[in-house]
Amino acid sequence: MIKKLVLHPDRLFSSDENIRQVARVLYQKVKDLPIISPHGHTDPSWFSNNLAFENATELLIKPDHYVFRMLYSQGVALEDLGLSSQDTVDINKIKVETDSRKIWYILAKNYYLFRGTPSRMWLDTVFSEVFGFDVILCEETADHYYDTINAALATDAFKPRALFERFKIELLSTTESPLNSLADHKVINDSYWQGRVISAYRPDPVIDPEFEGFVSAIKTFGELTGEDTSTFSGYLAAHRNRRSYFKATGVTSTDHGHPTAKTADLPKAEIEALYAIVISGNSSPEQAELFRAHMLTEMAAMSIADGLVMQLHPGVSRNHNQDVFNRFGRDKGADIPVQTSYVEQLKPLLNKYGTNTELTLILFTLDETSYTRELAPLAGHYPCLRLGPPWWFHDSPEGMRRFRQQMTETAGFYNTVGFNDDTRAFLSIPARHDVARRMDCNWLAELVCDHRLELDEAEELAIELAYKLAKKAYKL
Amino acid sequence: MIKKLVLHPDRLFSSDENIRQVARVLYQKVKDLPIISPHGHTDPSWFSNNLAFENATELLIKPDHYVFRMLYSQGVALEDLGLSSQDTVDINKIKVETDSRKIWYILAKNYYLFRGTPSRMWLDTVFSEVFGFDVILCEETADHYYDTINAALATDAFKPRALFERFKIELLSTTESPLNSLADHKVINDSYWQGRVISAYRPDPVIDPEFEGFVSAIKTFGELTGEDTSTFSGYLAAHRNRRSYFKATGVTSTDHGHPTAKTADLPKAEIEALYAIVISGNSSPEQAELFRAHMLTEMAAMSIADGLVMQLHPGVSRNHNQDVFNRFGRDKGADIPVQTSYVEQLKPLLNKYGTNTELTLILFTLDETSYTRELAPLAGHYPCLRLGPPWWFHDSPEGMRRFRQQMTETAGFYNTVGFNDDTRAFLSIPARHDVARRMDCNWLAELVCDHRLELDEAEELAIELAYKLAKKAYKL
Amino acid sequence: MIKKLVLHPDRLFSSDENIRQVARVLYQKVKDLPIISPHGHTDPSWFSNNLAFENATELLIKPDHYVFRMLYSQGVALEDLGLSSQDTVDINKIKVETDSRKIWYILAKNYYLFRGTPSRMWLDTVFSEVFGFDVILCEETADHYYDTINAALATDAFKPRALFERFKIELLSTTESPLNSLADHKVINDSYWQGRVISAYRPDPVIDPEFEGFVSAIKTFGELTGEDTSTFSGYLAAHRNRRSYFKATGVTSTDHGHPTAKTADLPKAEIEALYAIVISGNSSPEQAELFRAHMLTEMAAMSIADGLVMQLHPGVSRNHNQDVFNRFGRDKGADIPVQTSYVEQLKPLLNKYGTNTELTLILFTLDETSYTRELAPLAGHYPCLRLGPPWWFHDSPEGMRRFRQQMTETAGFYNTVGFNDDTRAFLSIPARHDVARRMDCNWLAELVCDHRLELDEAEELAIELAYKLAKKAYKL
Repeated sequence: MIKKLVLHPDRLFSSDENIRQVARVLYQKVKDLPIISPHGHTDPSWFSNNLAFENATELLIKPDHYVFRMLYSQGVALEDLGLSSQDTVDINKIKVETDSRKIWYILAKNYYLFRGTPSRMWLDTVFSEVFGFDVILCEETADHYYDTINAALATDAFKPRALFERFKIELLSTTESPLNSLADHKVINDSYWQGRVISAYRPDPVIDPEFEGFVSAIKTFGELTGEDTSTFSGYLAAHRNRRSYFKATGVTSTDHGHPTAKTADLPKAEIEALYAIVISGNSSPEQAELFRAHMLTEMAAMSIADGLVMQLHPGVSRNHNQDVFNRFGRDKGADIPVQTSYVEQLKPLLNKYGTNTELTLILFTLDETSYTRELAPLAGHYPCLRLGPPWWFHDSPEGMRRFRQQMTETAGFYNTVGFNDDTRAFLSIPARHDVARRMDCNWLAELVCDHRLELDEAEELAIELAYKLAKKAYKL
Repeated sequence: MIKKLVLHPDRLFSSDENIRQVARVLYQKVKDLPIISPHGHTDPSWFSNNLAFENATELLIKPDHYVFRMLYSQGVALEDLGLSSQDTVDINKIKVETDSRKIWYILAKNYYLFRGTPSRMWLDTVFSEVFGFDVILCEETADHYYDTINAALATDAFKPRALFERFKIELLSTTESPLNSLADHKVINDSYWQGRVISAYRPDPVIDPEFEGFVSAIKTFGELTGEDTSTFSGYLAAHRNRRSYFKATGVTSTDHGHPTAKTADLPKAEIEALYAIVISGNSSPEQAELFRAHMLTEMAAMSIADGLVMQLHPGVSRNHNQDVFNRFGRDKGADIPVQTSYVEQLKPLLNKYGTNTELTLILFTLDETSYTRELAPLAGHYPCLRLGPPWWFHDSPEGMRRFRQQMTETAGFYNTVGFNDDTRAFLSIPARHDVARRMDCNWLAELVCDHRLELDEAEELAIELAYKLAKKAYKL
Repeated sequence: MIKKLVLHPDRLFSSDENIRQVARVLYQKVKDLPIISPHGHTDPSWFSNNLAFENATELLIKPDHYVFRMLYSQGVALEDLGLSSQDTVDINKIKVETDSRKIWYILAKNYYLFRGTPSRMWLDTVFSEVFGFDVILCEETADHYYDTINAALATDAFKPRALFERFKIELLSTTESPLNSLADHKVINDSYWQGRVISAYRPDPVIDPEFEGFVSAIKTFGELTGEDTSTFSGYLAAHRNRRSYFKATGVTSTDHGHPTAKTADLPKAEIEALYAIVISGNSSPEQAELFRAHMLTEMAAMSIADGLVMQLHPGVSRNHNQDVFNRFGRDKGADIPVQTSYVEQLKPLLNKYGTNTELTLILFTLDETSYTRELAPLAGHYPCLRLGPPWWFHDSPEGMRRFRQQMTETAGFYNTVGFNDDTRAFLSIPARHDVARRMDCNWLAELVCDHRLELDEAEELAIELAYKLAKKAYKL
């Protein structure tokens, strides 16, 4: 007999009856609030073109590195999941699977591997709430799932804009390079469709000397802006130009994905000399790091001038698996967090701009050891600092619990910024926000039940955490 | 309608009925025990002069960096809270507020920012239990609060000695520099008042070459003791002299606030040469660090000789906000913890004295990552080591929970030393001890309820944690 | 009146009734499963000779560093516990106690020190379930305990093989040096007794240039294998020879106890030159570290060839207490964990062999900060990696809880390998596995009760965690 798929209405709430009852009350206040998604990686062309998604495998497996990293860790070849660098036979002569149904079967057969992971929860929520399944995904139901999903995707109700509305998304932010024309965003802005899809200014490709194609990106950056990017002052002008261009399309934030949180404030002559080296393509790793560090401080200065909110996402060793990187490229589930420190590293930027209340700098981390030791104490002091939500591997029930348990007492609730889904998996957005809302309601319920908070305060806070704080922090 | 202020009798106890009932039983055993406060920063002149406190703002806001750091983090200028470096108009030409009532209003208006923080809990406890308020602090009640508090403070019942007695403080320790005459403590000792207020020997100003005024402090140290502090042996003799002076007034401990936990044991010629450099005022940061490190080992030797219990508080980046330091000075909420390691750093001291059962060295940390990895394993082995309670940012319900969860299994209960309030906020002392007693009772109740501990054992332990262990560890 | 000793049937289960009921159901499924003990340090001669254990003190105190480290930390001299380097009077002229009954009294008198520690739980379980005591250990019952235990040990039912069977141990692994003849294991294999006791290949003495006696061990290694260990290729051949020898006796794994997780992959000429230095006995600490690092990669290559599962146990500062090491030697409770990082350190090995599905590399840690930051992300990606259970100081209820809370969401359950007891304390093996089974059932019950997992899935997982995953990971 095939097992039923049931999403329990009390899922993620404590089994303690006192807490559960309060959590239910709080959740009722927030469950239907619109979604603010101020940081993520969906593809804006979905919403500009509004074409139907291709099929279950292309939509739910291939773009989701949470999904294929787990399958890969248990011995499934990435080729068997249809991943390939560029052609159908990779250099190791392993055939790349092209039959999407077969790939879907692999997920179905191995779905038990996701027990206890957030991916399981997100996928089940998508299956149940978006597609209406009432049986679980397994080998016996794989065809049923595959055919049903594909049939649905072919209908208008499952086109990107329709889903966007169905999901009650009030605002969705994507992330683009300064070199991006934002053509899709402009199409959306100029259309009759009311959906609000904005970008974020993500200058890593023209700030990180170790980014693939950095040298030529700097040239393009100059051409695009009409600025002389062979000089540092021209380069800064190019940033101002593109930030302004982004801002004019509705953008309210920048985003910086650096290996570390290091900042610097170099004297003029020094940074000009360093810039000459990095755009020559001959910088050492230390010089590249120093350039990135200095540029964070420059970005803060520009944020004070133009009002864009700054986000910093440090601390990942990207593409750790050299073989997978060589064959399949970036973003294949092989990014691993590393120890990240903030106190000394942020000092140059904070000494210069930390007390300026015009600046908002939202800090993220993958290193939870910095929660109580560094991030909460910093955010509980500096006026410019805010704490981004639990990120990536920590976007999970236990990750959210640790975040609140460890951040709240020193930083309070009001130095946090609500939830970010940070996802490429568009269909999972409501599921992810729902997990955050449930976990926050449960945490607030715990505080109510052991009398650290009054119920009316918890109700106010639940709405702040689910909706208001994100709007305020990101100036939306 | 103005909301009631109610301290729930079961606050901080688990909402699980089984645990809560046991916690209540345990709490009854300890709630009225006298307070041992073996480490803190209250002002001894309060108890020697016994003058009335000035007003609500001077008493509850201005000296409490927990309070103003949160307000500052959300954009309130320190000048608006009446803080100033020396005059009423600071260098940035921001007017310093002198109207204490207006400052009180800022706290009232922003009191919601403290939701979920221990400051909220301590303040509410002070409001309810010390001043008898039954409505919450908010804009509407700000005047009522301000006037009521000030009226109370003018009465004899709210003078320092009366409150000391009302709070059932058996022993209160302050912290003083070796250069301090301990005049206030002597007045207290010589008075008819029975309150026991002692100091702790805190030699940072004459041990840390990076302390403001170190070079002249060394000269004063010599003059005060009649020792020749131009030589290292004279300098050590000066320490022995002042330790003896402190001890004669009832002091039982020393306290050391170092940037790291580094210790060293230099050969005689080397430390003498290093001493000559540091007292010249020309030491490098590395030399300063090495001198502090060596001096911890010397302090341990002197503790074995004179019996003073040694406390080490490492791991803070002091005055992280340069602008705030320049304008407002030390202790303005801008001290941020940094990563701190103990295993290799304590080795020189432990190799020399670690097995000596005459030595007690109490270790504190702001870096919770050292709890299970370093501190519990070290304290569960070395006879001289004891674990100080969760400190500063971790003096909070969740901080206490993590401390017990992470320390107990490897170090046991008997290698810990009870609770320290470590506060300047005199009125909050009973509230802080009450939080610790409640959290410890709740933790013991959890152990009883999942059958890791018998109830009679938990009762014994509750008393140890609330009272006995502190008396024993600090030799009180 | 002497207190009863009662092991509560629900011990370690949550006091929340919902969770407790599910935990009970799950525990019923696993409590009687055979024990797989794939990693430990019992003495194989116990099972080859099958002689009676000597007495309570020799069996339960002297070999258990968990026990004597706690007593020592509270001021009990190791000599008073009968520990000695070689003779009855040590260099400090402290008499070494030889009266086992007196030593037993010390434990009885100080047994309260173990409150809240796993040792207390293991010992009480041994007392109750192995020896049938129904009163607690205390001064009043010390003689009763001592006499009863000794009387039991003299009977056939308490000989090692009988206990092995009574404990339902399906497989027990010890750990031996490559220089060990495995004579005891061969005796066991050749006997009529059905008990399965295998070894693990632990090459630290011939891989770690800083191991006592390394240079002569390399010579013996050559003699034993007939290989020329004066050359690196001969040295590698010697490893292959002994691995094969071990494997022929039933061994399925290797084990590596390194100071760090550093790996390296040196060019041929470089490693040959380095080998020449290390076998000369003149290597620097850096050279020793580099040699160990390279050898981990060589061991991985051999594991791919011969199928032995590889275990890495890094991150301990061994023999931290110099005085105790000088007087009493290794393994005296003075090993302290240190910060351990895996991401960059494992890269050379993983770049070479990480995608090879023939390799199994089980990672352990004493640094819990690596759980969410490094180990779970690594194991959730690399096909060769698996996560060893909470180790040593973390082999405890709270340690197990943190392990599951922090590992599961990113690595899932199927990248973990069940439980290892890792113990020298033979009698505690069932107690230790029982703690793990209870804690895992309780964790699964929590997931069921907040609807993250279905009950039938939890039942399957309980059996995986208690039994199947260990068999599979260790190829048993």
